[in-house]
Amino acid sequence: MDKSVRVAVDAMGGDNAPGQIVKGAVEAINERKDIKVFLVGKEAEIRSELKQYSYDYDRIIVVNADEVITNDEAPVMAIRRKKNSSVVVALSLVKNGEADAFVSAGSTGAVLVGGQLIVGRIKGIERPPLAPLIPTVNGVSLLIDCGANVDARPSHLVQFAKMGSVYMENVIGIKNPRVAIVNIGTEEEKGNMLVKETFPLLKNCNDINFIGSIEAREIPNGGADVIVCEAFVGNVILKLYEGLGGALIGKIKTGLMSTTKSKIGAMLCKSALKETLKSFDASSYGGAPMLGLKGLVVKSHGNSKSVEVKNSILQCITFTEQKINEKIRLNIQEEE
Amino acid sequence: MDKSVRVAVDAMGGDNAPGQIVKGAVEAINERKDIKVFLVGKEAEIRSELKQYSYDYDRIIVVNADEVITNDEAPVMAIRRKKNSSVVVALSLVKNGEADAFVSAGSTGAVLVGGQLIVGRIKGIERPPLAPLIPTVNGVSLLIDCGANVDARPSHLVQFAKMGSVYMENVIGIKNPRVAIVNIGTEEEKGNMLVKETFPLLKNCNDINFIGSIEAREIPNGGADVIVCEAFVGNVILKLYEGLGGALIGKIKTGLMSTTKSKIGAMLCKSALKETLKSFDASSYGGAPMLGLKGLVVKSHGNSKSVEVKNSILQCITFTEQKINEKIRLNIQEEE
Repeated sequence: MDKSVRVAVDAMGGDNAPGQIVKGAVEAINERKDIKVFLVGKEAEIRSELKQYSYDYDRIIVVNADEVITNDEAPVMAIRRKKNSSVVVALSLVKNGEADAFVSAGSTGAVLVGGQLIVGRIKGIERPPLAPLIPTVNGVSLLIDCGANVDARPSHLVQFAKMGSVYMENVIGIKNPRVAIVNIGTEEEKGNMLVKETFPLLKNCNDINFIGSIEAREIPNGGADVIVCEAFVGNVILKLYEGLGGALIGKIKTGLMSTTKSKIGAMLCKSALKETLKSFDASSYGGAPMLGLKGLVVKSHGNSKSVEVKNSILQCITFTEQKINEKIRLNIQEEE
Repeated sequence: MDKSVRVAVDAMGGDNAPGQIVKGAVEAINERKDIKVFLVGKEAEIRSELKQYSYDYDRIIVVNADEVITNDEAPVMAIRRKKNSSVVVALSLVKNGEADAFVSAGSTGAVLVGGQLIVGRIKGIERPPLAPLIPTVNGVSLLIDCGANVDARPSHLVQFAKMGSVYMENVIGIKNPRVAIVNIGTEEEKGNMLVKETFPLLKNCNDINFIGSIEAREIPNGGADVIVCEAFVGNVILKLYEGLGGALIGKIKTGLMSTTKSKIGAMLCKSALKETLKSFDASSYGGAPMLGLKGLVVKSHGNSKSVEVKNSILQCITFTEQKINEKIRLNIQEEE
């Protein structure tokens, strides 16, 4: 039996579609033999991009979809009306069991809504969160939820903590991952209403390694492996990571160009500096999985180039092989 | 008539008290002649520190207070019970009109509670926010509220926007400051319930320059002058600024030491780099004023050294001279 992981890719989503998306798909199947990709979108455009590359033709299947959902469209409406959009067609492949996973660099709203409406939630999951990996000084942490469910309730956050633990343990390989809730102090009585209500629930979970509150200051220091928060806060954290990283790098470049001495110095340490800063770029860690769905849905950054698309596709292999959804299902149902 | 600005300083607050606090006070009065400082705390300890310096004895007055409020104490209880603490004694000087302003690097909770309970709110102000300046690529922005009022209501955020505008225009000198609300997208329909309710209220304010939503990514780029948010989110932003800055600098240092070539380069660009990174250090911009009180209350960073204490004291001059509280009072009452 063919054990390839089958990934449906939204060829039309993102700032660099379809060129970089198609390129990323080709790179993915050239890197791993145990993967098949469905490139979903405008067939003529996709084929014209594919012509440039040599690859195993049996492992890239083009699926036509004439419509495109843009970032400006209201997601619910777009998913309901554009039945022949790349997002809807690709997600339907997952729903029908023809694909194991879906990857898109397109509209986050459409991916989140489509994931819920088309692929559907695992039984028992109240709200599926979006959970990107963010860089820390020691490696990566999982930020959960970073944008799927604003104004979430305590029970949602508890499920996020459990799903995040399963992910970090089985996909990233961190044994007994430390789970913390984002707070404005480390004392138990600190926080807003949501955090105060959620804290004791997390403390009572026997199946996660809850270490208490984490202040935002400690997130980049790797203070926890699973960072639990409501989506508004998570989105602020993720975007500030990107913005502050970019702003600091810009400042550093200007600073290095300020004197002749520093210019010479900059030439000498350029490559070492570049390597360092890259390891701290939140957008380079592939895509963010939407957890708790019956299939895998991965949201890649809107400005993804081929390398991020490739990484997003490849991360579907571990997720599928490790049967993460099955583990999440068992974990959540045990509790009921 | 003596027009000196009189600042009551909590000599016992912060990680480096009383040594660095006393030193900062001396540096402040040596830099500006139009200022007087009350050093409030354990008299013997303060005098023993003061002995090291030469300064105008008439402009530093030691006020004894035997008790100290620590970071571990529940703020409301501590303010009520420790009547002879440095925080309560110093705030009472402001309340009684003997001082114009209060500066502390001590317990944030105690400063916020004490400010409200002892100094009191300007009539019409519902919730006084804590509003630090944060660095951007172009200069600074005001983050309001960064920790005083979690779970705030829309009407509070509207007052924050107004007070923040008065501050940026009159203290920092930015004409017609751009006000934005922190959001997870820039479209008007995006956001959590609080932001959705607040947005139209801000849009209807004729006395501020409301430019809409700001995503966290654009904060370090100076996307707005007054960044309005609820305290939980503001606190996350402020602390992530500090944490991410520190983590990146650490990473850069390690990166620069990774090869012989980069080590030589690092030596040459060290001073330029240091200057650059310092301009992006959120803790170096003096203290955060708590706006909307009958006197000025400034919270300085817990790990403040003498230079930050000095800056916090000196910023009280502009604030007082510009009659910020009077302007806030008029601005808020106009609306009623």
